[in-house]
Amino acid sequence: MIGIDDVRAAAARLAGYVTATPLLASHALDELCGVPVLCKAENLQRTGSFKLRGALNHVLSLSPAERAGGVIAASSGNHAQALAWAARLVGTYAVVVVPSDAPPAKVLSAKMLGAEVYYYARGGDDRDTIVGEIARERGLAIVPSANSDEVIAGGGTVAAEILAQTDQVTTLVVPIGGGGLAAGCAVAAKALNPNVRVIGVEPEYGADTALSLREGRRVSIPTPATIADGLTHRTPAPLPFDINRAFLDQVVTVSDAEIIEAMAVAFNYLRVVVEPSGACGLAAAICERIEITSGTMGVVLSGGNIALDPFRSLVGRAAAAGGDGGVPGLHARGGQQSAGTA
Amino acid sequence: MIGIDDVRAAAARLAGYVTATPLLASHALDELCGVPVLCKAENLQRTGSFKLRGALNHVLSLSPAERAGGVIAASSGNHAQALAWAARLVGTYAVVVVPSDAPPAKVLSAKMLGAEVYYYARGGDDRDTIVGEIARERGLAIVPSANSDEVIAGGGTVAAEILAQTDQVTTLVVPIGGGGLAAGCAVAAKALNPNVRVIGVEPEYGADTALSLREGRRVSIPTPATIADGLTHRTPAPLPFDINRAFLDQVVTVSDAEIIEAMAVAFNYLRVVVEPSGACGLAAAICERIEITSGTMGVVLSGGNIALDPFRSLVGRAAAAGGDGGVPGLHARGGQQSAGTA
Repeated sequence: MIGIDDVRAAAARLAGYVTATPLLASHALDELCGVPVLCKAENLQRTGSFKLRGALNHVLSLSPAERAGGVIAASSGNHAQALAWAARLVGTYAVVVVPSDAPPAKVLSAKMLGAEVYYYARGGDDRDTIVGEIARERGLAIVPSANSDEVIAGGGTVAAEILAQTDQVTTLVVPIGGGGLAAGCAVAAKALNPNVRVIGVEPEYGADTALSLREGRRVSIPTPATIADGLTHRTPAPLPFDINRAFLDQVVTVSDAEIIEAMAVAFNYLRVVVEPSGACGLAAAICERIEITSGTMGVVLSGGNIALDPFRSLVGRAAAAGGDGGVPGLHARGGQQSAGTA
Repeated sequence: MIGIDDVRAAAARLAGYVTATPLLASHALDELCGVPVLCKAENLQRTGSFKLRGALNHVLSLSPAERAGGVIAASSGNHAQALAWAARLVGTYAVVVVPSDAPPAKVLSAKMLGAEVYYYARGGDDRDTIVGEIARERGLAIVPSANSDEVIAGGGTVAAEILAQTDQVTTLVVPIGGGGLAAGCAVAAKALNPNVRVIGVEPEYGADTALSLREGRRVSIPTPATIADGLTHRTPAPLPFDINRAFLDQVVTVSDAEIIEAMAVAFNYLRVVVEPSGACGLAAAICERIEITSGTMGVVLSGGNIALDPFRSLVGRAAAAGGDGGVPGLHARGGQQSAGTA
């Protein structure tokens, strides 16, 4: 199991390559949630998601020989873009194995960054088997999307960065797909400030980690049907799961409708584009899944890779109240907050 | 005329209140522009625009007695929100005088922050006369949106921050409304690095500064008809104009259609929401208004206050290519850039 030193080493490796993403705040969002909220905008990270931190940390940790042989990963899209970018940076070759229903924009971006794309049928072929076979045949180093100490440590730099940017956060809310981001953040947060609660968020129909934590072991669920295309894992990755079992305070779930509301809130109040997977944490925050009466809520917006057309299709007029005005269906649960939150 | 010391003093006053906004970059945007591009995301500033820097610097520079008496400003929306936020922070009262056709979301936000709103008819009443009368009657301190040394110095902290974040920028591109942001940025950039070119951008039907610079004196144009609602000034403000005449290397113009393309590019490549006024600089960059063959282009995204509904109406399907994929009608003019630009 990794520790804070691994996260610190990752941060040192990533310095100068990854964006130190800002903590975004909005008076209207504070009112909506009843407590001050700071959103870590990893949707603004290079390649559009936090995934760059883990993929790049893993690639930079490979031996020169491993690097030179090229890299491969399975991904629903964001890890693919991140790996393509990392490979390009170090001057090696990347193969990404993506489900045939992955968002075209994500796949196109990986291609534009020079990656070779291999499609598989989601629900049919086992992606890890495919990756293993291609890696063996072609001598590629596998860079897992979550099940890697280096990838988890890279994800942990998100929490380390938040806690270096502010000492106000008492509850940290993190989306869970494979579980690497939540695990890394939990390790970093608990080491840097044991009083910080770390809460994971899953789509209600993709709650493999919540179920597995309840059962006390990794269980599988049917392929999740959710708009959160980055969180459609059938079972938690083993390495992050052990950490999440030890360190996560709670896992909560959100519906697709709540995710869409969160995307509209991010657009109107924070002026950023958040993809469905990346909006799960914010959805939990605004839909009162998180018990918090004092302190500040830190929410990781983990990715922003959604093109304008699908965004327009998902986020309809009903959610389009705009400005710092209200979003229909949502009501403030707290009083007014100080404008000087962040 | 202000100098770099005034900008430094402003930065010191603003520290802890304004967001140190990130420099956003995208591989696809670099390709589109033919050089590396770094976008200063002031659309992510608190209250959604760079205006907070100037308004807050002015309010924090008032004497205790002036502050206590309340503040007033005319604004098309962004300065109003900024002033409302600043007044709230220091515990005083704000009156904002806005045109009756100002975007409702901007006005609502100023109201939510506690400001009293006074409407006037654009093109009819002279807003400065109205502000002067109310200020005199009620003993309010006027906080101009551009014609104030403190407001200009506050705007200059944008350029100072950029040059502290990177030493790569050789050309800095800044939208021009009243001219305060461009003036402050020009003062700061030329003082910190005389080799940096500073280029202002106006909407083609709101090119009062470009025309005035050509004439060598401040001239008036008819009320501009442009979607860039924050840049509809009929004549440059006097204080910024003197600075811009001395320091700006060039002023270029962009069409509304080009602004809309830039908004789509910002959505798809940078995952941020930029309002029309805030997208002028990016429009000039992607539509090849800026002559640049080497070095890095810094582009200020000056504001993001546009609600989802008007955004959807403006930015149609044609611009919706998505991801890091292409935007129809736009073609890369340069070769591939290193992925490690920023």
